[in-house]
Amino acid sequence: MRNLRIVVVNTIIDHVDESDESNDALHEQAERGKALRIGLLEAGYNIIASLPADLYLPERIAQLQPDMIIIDAESDARDVLEHIVITTRDERRPIVMFTEDDTTSTMEAAMEAGVTAYIVAGLQSERIKPVLDVALARFRQEQKLLTELSDTKHKLAERKVVERAKGVLMAKHKLSEEQAYQKLRSMAMNKNLKLSEIAQRLLDVEDLLG
Amino acid sequence: MRNLRIVVVNTIIDHVDESDESNDALHEQAERGKALRIGLLEAGYNIIASLPADLYLPERIAQLQPDMIIIDAESDARDVLEHIVITTRDERRPIVMFTEDDTTSTMEAAMEAGVTAYIVAGLQSERIKPVLDVALARFRQEQKLLTELSDTKHKLAERKVVERAKGVLMAKHKLSEEQAYQKLRSMAMNKNLKLSEIAQRLLDVEDLLG
Repeated sequence: MRNLRIVVVNTIIDHVDESDESNDALHEQAERGKALRIGLLEAGYNIIASLPADLYLPERIAQLQPDMIIIDAESDARDVLEHIVITTRDERRPIVMFTEDDTTSTMEAAMEAGVTAYIVAGLQSERIKPVLDVALARFRQEQKLLTELSDTKHKLAERKVVERAKGVLMAKHKLSEEQAYQKLRSMAMNKNLKLSEIAQRLLDVEDLLG
Repeated sequence: MRNLRIVVVNTIIDHVDESDESNDALHEQAERGKALRIGLLEAGYNIIASLPADLYLPERIAQLQPDMIIIDAESDARDVLEHIVITTRDERRPIVMFTEDDTTSTMEAAMEAGVTAYIVAGLQSERIKPVLDVALARFRQEQKLLTELSDTKHKLAERKVVERAKGVLMAKHKLSEEQAYQKLRSMAMNKNLKLSEIAQRLLDVEDLLG
């Protein structure tokens, strides 16, 4: 568990111009980012990359295949979210977001975007491990739920396809429902396909032939 | 948002025997519980009740109908969970658990039991509001997902019932699938019932008559 491969994403500008007074906030951000990385390393995590939140993020995440993504979003949590949505669209991963942004709409947008844990002002190094552990447990729980949802949707869609195909067979070949079902089943077995797959092919052909 | 009606659940023994040395830990727990309550009150939340985690908890929660349940579970987080499961079985509510228990199996059991946010060693009063806000956003997101899952399961179940009923009509009255469907539909309209409801009644009678 401890050797999680982690990618840290940040919105921090590394090179701060010390002469500019408005850079105080940036400087503070950079310090915080450093504290996060130190905390992770001290807790024994494996930071495989530290990346900016830009257009290339989704591709890099796909290449690196980390076990977890940690976002150090400071005050502009919202801006980072669009890249995150793209990053996790194809493959969900646990995402932990450390931020100072406590606006409710940003929190909701973050949940919507697939953020597993949204931690406001919670960056004390002794808390990092339990926060990541909770995020992992939460992520697994969510995955279970999402898998169940997608399985159920899939079953419903399959059932519709099989029903339509049965209807076509019944009408074309004057079969009873049972006969139509048996015909579909034997076609599926002959072709080594699932019932819903043979049903879909039958409907595809039906559409072609009119 | 700020006037959330909150029930605080604790596992703390209030009356500590000061003469007993082994009571140091209990004393610390009591102090922590006090700090949590003060933090909530200072943040403007409405604590409508403070209850022990016992057999009567589910009934009391049902009576009070709070917007959120906060559990101050200290180190024995696991013991509290069984009462929580019963409490939220019939009606889900956002549950925030503050604890010192950082064992992974307890975290997972908590997620399983429906705990929305599991906060280890995170009881600083300035963090209470963002933690509760995140928990609410998370809860709404989960509710959406669970509703979608239950709707999809329901549709699947209905579809199975309608299909079986159609099959019965086709066999008994030598109808085509289309005719059976039309018959079901007109029965449903006559009785002012949903298609799946009339289908279920038909199957119930079929079972009775053999």
